Amino acid sequence: MDAFYFYNPVKIHFGEGAIRALKDEMKPYKKVLLTYGKGSIKKNGIYDKVMEALEGKEVYELSEIMPNPRVEKVYEGIKLVKDHDIDFILAVGGGSTIDCSKAIAAGAKTDEDFWKKYFINKDEVLDATPLGSVLTMAGTGSEMDNGGVITNWEEQLKLSFGGDPCYPKFSILDPTYTYSLPKHHLISGTVDMFSHVMEEYFSMPDEENTTDEISEALMRTIIENIYIALDDPRNYRARANLMWASTLAINGLTSLSKRSDWLSHRLEHTVSAFYDVSHGMGLAVMHPNYLKYVYKGHEKKFRRWAENVWKMDTSKMTDDEAAIKSIERLQEFFKSIGAPTTLKELGVQRDKIEDMAKKTGVYKTSYSDLKLQDVIKIYEQAYE
Amino acid sequence: MDAFYFYNPVKIHFGEGAIRALKDEMKPYKKVLLTYGKGSIKKNGIYDKVMEALEGKEVYELSEIMPNPRVEKVYEGIKLVKDHDIDFILAVGGGSTIDCSKAIAAGAKTDEDFWKKYFINKDEVLDATPLGSVLTMAGTGSEMDNGGVITNWEEQLKLSFGGDPCYPKFSILDPTYTYSLPKHHLISGTVDMFSHVMEEYFSMPDEENTTDEISEALMRTIIENIYIALDDPRNYRARANLMWASTLAINGLTSLSKRSDWLSHRLEHTVSAFYDVSHGMGLAVMHPNYLKYVYKGHEKKFRRWAENVWKMDTSKMTDDEAAIKSIERLQEFFKSIGAPTTLKELGVQRDKIEDMAKKTGVYKTSYSDLKLQDVIKIYEQAYE
Repeated sequence: MDAFYFYNPVKIHFGEGAIRALKDEMKPYKKVLLTYGKGSIKKNGIYDKVMEALEGKEVYELSEIMPNPRVEKVYEGIKLVKDHDIDFILAVGGGSTIDCSKAIAAGAKTDEDFWKKYFINKDEVLDATPLGSVLTMAGTGSEMDNGGVITNWEEQLKLSFGGDPCYPKFSILDPTYTYSLPKHHLISGTVDMFSHVMEEYFSMPDEENTTDEISEALMRTIIENIYIALDDPRNYRARANLMWASTLAINGLTSLSKRSDWLSHRLEHTVSAFYDVSHGMGLAVMHPNYLKYVYKGHEKKFRRWAENVWKMDTSKMTDDEAAIKSIERLQEFFKSIGAPTTLKELGVQRDKIEDMAKKTGVYKTSYSDLKLQDVIKIYEQAYE
Repeated sequence: MDAFYFYNPVKIHFGEGAIRALKDEMKPYKKVLLTYGKGSIKKNGIYDKVMEALEGKEVYELSEIMPNPRVEKVYEGIKLVKDHDIDFILAVGGGSTIDCSKAIAAGAKTDEDFWKKYFINKDEVLDATPLGSVLTMAGTGSEMDNGGVITNWEEQLKLSFGGDPCYPKFSILDPTYTYSLPKHHLISGTVDMFSHVMEEYFSMPDEENTTDEISEALMRTIIENIYIALDDPRNYRARANLMWASTLAINGLTSLSKRSDWLSHRLEHTVSAFYDVSHGMGLAVMHPNYLKYVYKGHEKKFRRWAENVWKMDTSKMTDDEAAIKSIERLQEFFKSIGAPTTLKELGVQRDKIEDMAKKTGVYKTSYSDLKLQDVIKIYEQAYE
């Protein structure tokens, strides 16, 4: 087990009716920026419940936050926070809304350009307007982590940022809020949470450790519950387990003592930055293809995964077979829940692959040491 | 999954050499109460490293903190903190030292009698002197929880207390600090951590959920690593996994969505309060006997445990057999690592059982609804 530092002070209120906690949590704040997406929260009643809890406060709104949230939206939010001396940002939505809100929170506390400072120069966020979240979609885990991802469409870049002040002060997780999600979001969110776990699980050290045991527990939970949620969208147990597994998948727990990888996410971010595809759908294509390209030298880890997560009997397989078959099993899983398996399905044009690979860059991670040609080959392999 | 609230702001510095972080963590504080046990930290060099990090501060010491820490020691510490306006308590040791320090921290912020207020009246701790810990023994998990247990020898009571201000500000976990632990402590700590997981795992709801999956992961980790640590006390991987599993076993994670039980702990606390036995050794006797008494109605949960944790093939067993055999397997496990299996081995006198049962009280928990006669029967069953 490698050395690690762990700190996660987010207060979680979990369960049906957890919104009851909102009023108390908001007590210290007077001027609130309420952020949300396309307005589904107005249809399903969540907006009204939130506004009730905010009674008596000065509330400003930033709506229409898009999937793969963009820099323009962040600038809009920063201006609102600065112009009105807003002292709290309340994100009501999924990962896009929360990520966008974190970027606004960080950007509002600096006079520099937020994109340049936190995304290009990669400064750690050391100050941010306090924020909280009411989660309406499981997947990104942004409700209990200290980072996010923003897209700069003009530069075709989708980059991450973060720092401890980006931890939400609290997050409200009511699994019933996900009942009415479009199926597409359920699938995409599920691939995303599963991918978060794999980014840590498939990283050094490969030796047995508590963290990988927990990662396997989360993967089994996700596999078991996604099928139930697809069949029966109002199944509380399945929605609750997916929601909590999703939060744990990226709240730090699965990375402790692990060197982490995250190259699949990088590969996907380029796809989104070029084609604005849903993050989870992009991951469903890229993650298995990345693993196929880099599994050599880690066959035993894949065999363990095959046995413990996929319940495969690998006793008659060579190490190589066990690795390959387990990755194929992952692809089958993604396909079986309705996710795509090729870049072609996502609308990617083959002649863009070299450009995409150049934007993705050249990477050395925990499992890989890739050159531009390797990145091109992975995209090619994922094409059809 | 039941609703839950989760909040755990402890900063963890984990790994060999983690003591490096101490100096920075101590920066905000000027007057420090250093608490520790019998002085082994002076022999193994930890004391010197701590004092180095505290250079320039006014340091007071409270040493000789005993296993099953007692009220007298807490009063002594409270007096020191009040007399010298101490602004931070640094506990260097295992659960006893940290628990005692938490009680001092809480008691120092009230003019009332701490025992009466927090242990008899069960007031939640709402204010405490800030504290931190340098852990030297894995087991209690006190380094990342917000409670503790103190013994009042005169009243033959061993009671718990807690509240968020009792969370350490930080804890330093260096697995190499446990290399020189007496074997007895390794065994006792291991039973304790395993028991913490079971107190949550064997509680309602029994249905499949993320939390129980994680509990199983922790139990497997403990089983795998204790044998390695017993054979090879300086095995870093085993010590590190045991230390981290122990912390996770009671930092809140395994209780989320669970109603918790904790009656085995109550049963053991009485044994310790009467005979001053090591907590873990008492649990090794009481926990399996408690489970044997209450398993009916939860057989399927025990079957799952048998399969997933003990790797037993239960396909040819009735539900009842699977439950009984899995509990017997637990007893074998405790015995195999050198823990006792009967109260007699612990030196308990049979004619004290009724008195002990009366002190333990009558309990309704998640798995049980016990009357005095039941408690007597459990102690009797555990006797030999």
